[in-house]
Amino acid sequence: MQVLKEMKGKFLHFRQDEVMLSNGKKAVRDTVLHPGAVAIAAVTEEGEVVFVRQYRYPIGKVCYEIPAGKLEDGEDPLETAKRELEEETGYKAARWEKLASFYTAPGFSNEVIHLYRAEGLESTSPHPDPDEIIEFEKIPLSRARAMLDGGEIKDAKSIIGLLWLLNERLLTTGP
Amino acid sequence: MQVLKEMKGKFLHFRQDEVMLSNGKKAVRDTVLHPGAVAIAAVTEEGEVVFVRQYRYPIGKVCYEIPAGKLEDGEDPLETAKRELEEETGYKAARWEKLASFYTAPGFSNEVIHLYRAEGLESTSPHPDPDEIIEFEKIPLSRARAMLDGGEIKDAKSIIGLLWLLNERLLTTGP
Repeated sequence: MQVLKEMKGKFLHFRQDEVMLSNGKKAVRDTVLHPGAVAIAAVTEEGEVVFVRQYRYPIGKVCYEIPAGKLEDGEDPLETAKRELEEETGYKAARWEKLASFYTAPGFSNEVIHLYRAEGLESTSPHPDPDEIIEFEKIPLSRARAMLDGGEIKDAKSIIGLLWLLNERLLTTGP
Repeated sequence: MQVLKEMKGKFLHFRQDEVMLSNGKKAVRDTVLHPGAVAIAAVTEEGEVVFVRQYRYPIGKVCYEIPAGKLEDGEDPLETAKRELEEETGYKAARWEKLASFYTAPGFSNEVIHLYRAEGLESTSPHPDPDEIIEFEKIPLSRARAMLDGGEIKDAKSIIGLLWLLNERLLTTGP
């Protein structure tokens, strides 16, 4: 592998590499190195899902998303999840379960997101990062599904969290 | 907005921008501009989902994914989807339905993926890009779900496609 170009961002590291394929041919690969992140499907006793709304600069739009945040150096993902949920929404959760880890865009990035379900929510005060402007909203699962079908929820990690919860509900209670 | 740094890749454009937030504060945003892509949840008459396996350089692993590919300039996403399904798996589909469009990583990229369901599959010969090495495999929906739970399917767009199909099946036939 040979690095053709690279650029360090604030938290991303951009690289263009020349690689050798298993068939012996050379190819160029654009790559974004990312520290990894967590996302939280937080559900109230009433079956509402906690969403945050924030302006996302890359897409130029306000986006509905489940709470999420980047891993800090050496931090355990579950601790990051607990910290981010409380920072963004003020909720502490009594019960945590890891649902999945997935790559958001393995064609060009190593970003991995660890997805947790959080239940038994207790409200405290949110205290977001100074350069994040975030509002949160509790949305019943059935309305969230309608928002997904209507194109109002468009963030991949949030769609995974939502479909995961919907699947669990359908498996336990039927359609 | 002020561009602090930028780098053009083969198909990505990396940028670090200084932006003004709605609260009047300045912040730095790492951004990856992407041409957009499609993904295809292709289902056989027997209820199998078509997966491709390929080595993904950014994560250093072979990844199970649903067929997918980048949009070419001015190309209609449905045409891209038809082309990519045939290139990667050799399948042509009689019935296409758009399921959703989503952002893979709106925190740092504008990549949007248009997800389609393809049914009525007819086999021809695959003809992948010369710098892609791809194998394809048909996996029954129930086994794909077990692979997801076991951490064998780790690609976000593929998890969305799979959970979407599972939800539809649960809604029509129950658990």
